[in-house]
Amino acid sequence: MNDDLGLHRALIGVAGAREQLNTPVLVLDRAALDRNIASMAAYARARGVALRPHAKTHKSVEIARRQLAAGAAGVCCAKLGEAEALADGGIGSILVTSPVVSVPAIRRLVALAARIDELIVVVDHPDNVAALAAAAAAASAALAASVRPLDVLIDIDPGIRRTGVASAAAALELAERVRALPALRYRGVQMYCGLQQHIASFEERAASIGERTQYLQSILALLAEHGMPPAIVTGSGTGTHRIDAALSVLNEWQVGSYAFMDRQYFDCDLSGDGTTLFECALFVDARVVSANTPGMATLDAGFKTLAADGGPPRVVSGAPDGSAYHFMGDEHGLIVDPALKHVWRIGELVRLVTPHCDPTVNLYDGYHVFAGDVLEDIWPVSARGRSR
Amino acid sequence: MNDDLGLHRALIGVAGAREQLNTPVLVLDRAALDRNIASMAAYARARGVALRPHAKTHKSVEIARRQLAAGAAGVCCAKLGEAEALADGGIGSILVTSPVVSVPAIRRLVALAARIDELIVVVDHPDNVAALAAAAAAASAALAASVRPLDVLIDIDPGIRRTGVASAAAALELAERVRALPALRYRGVQMYCGLQQHIASFEERAASIGERTQYLQSILALLAEHGMPPAIVTGSGTGTHRIDAALSVLNEWQVGSYAFMDRQYFDCDLSGDGTTLFECALFVDARVVSANTPGMATLDAGFKTLAADGGPPRVVSGAPDGSAYHFMGDEHGLIVDPALKHVWRIGELVRLVTPHCDPTVNLYDGYHVFAGDVLEDIWPVSARGRSR
Repeated sequence: MNDDLGLHRALIGVAGAREQLNTPVLVLDRAALDRNIASMAAYARARGVALRPHAKTHKSVEIARRQLAAGAAGVCCAKLGEAEALADGGIGSILVTSPVVSVPAIRRLVALAARIDELIVVVDHPDNVAALAAAAAAASAALAASVRPLDVLIDIDPGIRRTGVASAAAALELAERVRALPALRYRGVQMYCGLQQHIASFEERAASIGERTQYLQSILALLAEHGMPPAIVTGSGTGTHRIDAALSVLNEWQVGSYAFMDRQYFDCDLSGDGTTLFECALFVDARVVSANTPGMATLDAGFKTLAADGGPPRVVSGAPDGSAYHFMGDEHGLIVDPALKHVWRIGELVRLVTPHCDPTVNLYDGYHVFAGDVLEDIWPVSARGRSR
Repeated sequence: MNDDLGLHRALIGVAGAREQLNTPVLVLDRAALDRNIASMAAYARARGVALRPHAKTHKSVEIARRQLAAGAAGVCCAKLGEAEALADGGIGSILVTSPVVSVPAIRRLVALAARIDELIVVVDHPDNVAALAAAAAAASAALAASVRPLDVLIDIDPGIRRTGVASAAAALELAERVRALPALRYRGVQMYCGLQQHIASFEERAASIGERTQYLQSILALLAEHGMPPAIVTGSGTGTHRIDAALSVLNEWQVGSYAFMDRQYFDCDLSGDGTTLFECALFVDARVVSANTPGMATLDAGFKTLAADGGPPRVVSGAPDGSAYHFMGDEHGLIVDPALKHVWRIGELVRLVTPHCDPTVNLYDGYHVFAGDVLEDIWPVSARGRSR
């Protein structure tokens, strides 16, 4: 971990630590995080749905533990390296939601499967199914013992053309290949509707998910007809979980961002009635480093500390209402008072809501965990940078 | 460093290592890097300009050493944490190009100044000048010995409103304050024309820099009139160094991206006659993880491995000519053959040129350094994430 986090450790337990920290820092409101985790867990439990939160959002062993303690069945990871990092921290049940295809990566996958309770991986191509089966069989032979088969889900493309099989027939064909290979175990299907998550209007989002779910149901029926009803039907996200709950087709949810929330999700009506379901638990605290023009100031956070794919962050404190942040390159941002009057002092703190939580978290080595203005702890971003 | 880099170390010295690496990887063509470093060094030497390459681009002790070995006077850093990381690696002369303003950061700055040969920091505000002087004086008193004063440059805003004083009068006033404080030493001025660097047309870029340089000259004249001719006049960048050379006002250059190049700079005419001045030395190697639609495929590199602020990367190999990359979220990208015909196999490698090198480098723990297809070494991104 970085030396500057070492310096910050001396401030753990200190009230008013916020002012004494070097910036920018990734700030986690622990109480809000815990309430978000509890709220989603209770909602899924009441609906009879298994929760497998997506750890690509937080990349944190500590947060995964809290989600499991609240009843989650396991976690999801986007990449194998992320799964390895969480396994190193003791997380025992992991679904890898992207195909693992290269020779070196499949070798790591098989090694990981041997050391945790449950490892499931998605497949979307016959070549990959063959390669996984060969590697799992070879590992079994090398141990001169029968090892547990490798658990797989058939990944179904909801129309994004990102990953997943492209048709019901292709899903069936791939499931049949898996069934024929003793080194693999068919566990079910995944269909993640990524494009729908951020449709701002609840009604439009619900209409689109309804249509996609009919497609999914046609695949489930076909699989059942051929003696392969899926045990696991996983998908959903923070944006669509209320809609997926009403449709009752998915039995596992991969929700991720609900734990933190971000500007993109606050721009969406998640509940359908305008009520806010989750609190903002994640912030970036930045500092004014230059203030030579009335009505504006320069912050020490830019592209290297706020992922830019989601547009600008939202300003929540340290500035007049309505103040806007504008990216000013790799290291800086400009904050502008709409009245063009406010005068900032250099060194002042400004709190921002991240535009898109996942890639922003990936820029930091640690979470600064606060209870009110007391720095409670610094949690490592355990899988930071583990993108392979 | 990440465990997966540990796995990759076993491949050092291996020809054809590229195929055996987990992806995505940040690939450095060592010979191209060395030629870029030598070329810029020779050009600056011939013009009598001191070179102080900006390490915010590479964040690497190893690359900074190569720049120093080629004759650089020192390096620039954007943030104090970056400077600390390079100092830990033995880099002895550093200019911090953004103001350092908070109480904890000023404490670190003074500590860093005491342990390297030369540390210079920019100032743009009287409050910051007072705070730096107080901290430097206190450090001196604590040691009960006279320590070297803290070196400062007056930062001049070229009209961006990011950092820097806003007028010639403000520059003079700030320089006079510095001169009056024995704990500080006035070394000169900085004016970095960030907005001009990426103007695609050489002529338009030259016209804009010409106008800004007249403004700078008016400030230099005023400072000289008051007995403070600056020893250092620093600025320039990869985009404008040829223009700055012709104008002969800057005596130090902060060029950074020339070492690697990126898609944004390849889109600019850097020479004025269409000739390419520097080679592409930096790439991202990604892999096809899904290929269920003819004419397109999904790569394992998205927002977490390619900074999105500069638009999409350019495709250089592993795909038909004219193939384009499109971001597909945090973990993936889509590559599309313009003829919509090519069929990729899963596991195939595709080489990309980064859209914007600086924030992309900051996403990786290490450079995979290649000579041809032999993996020569893995160099740490020493200051990765050191944004405070």
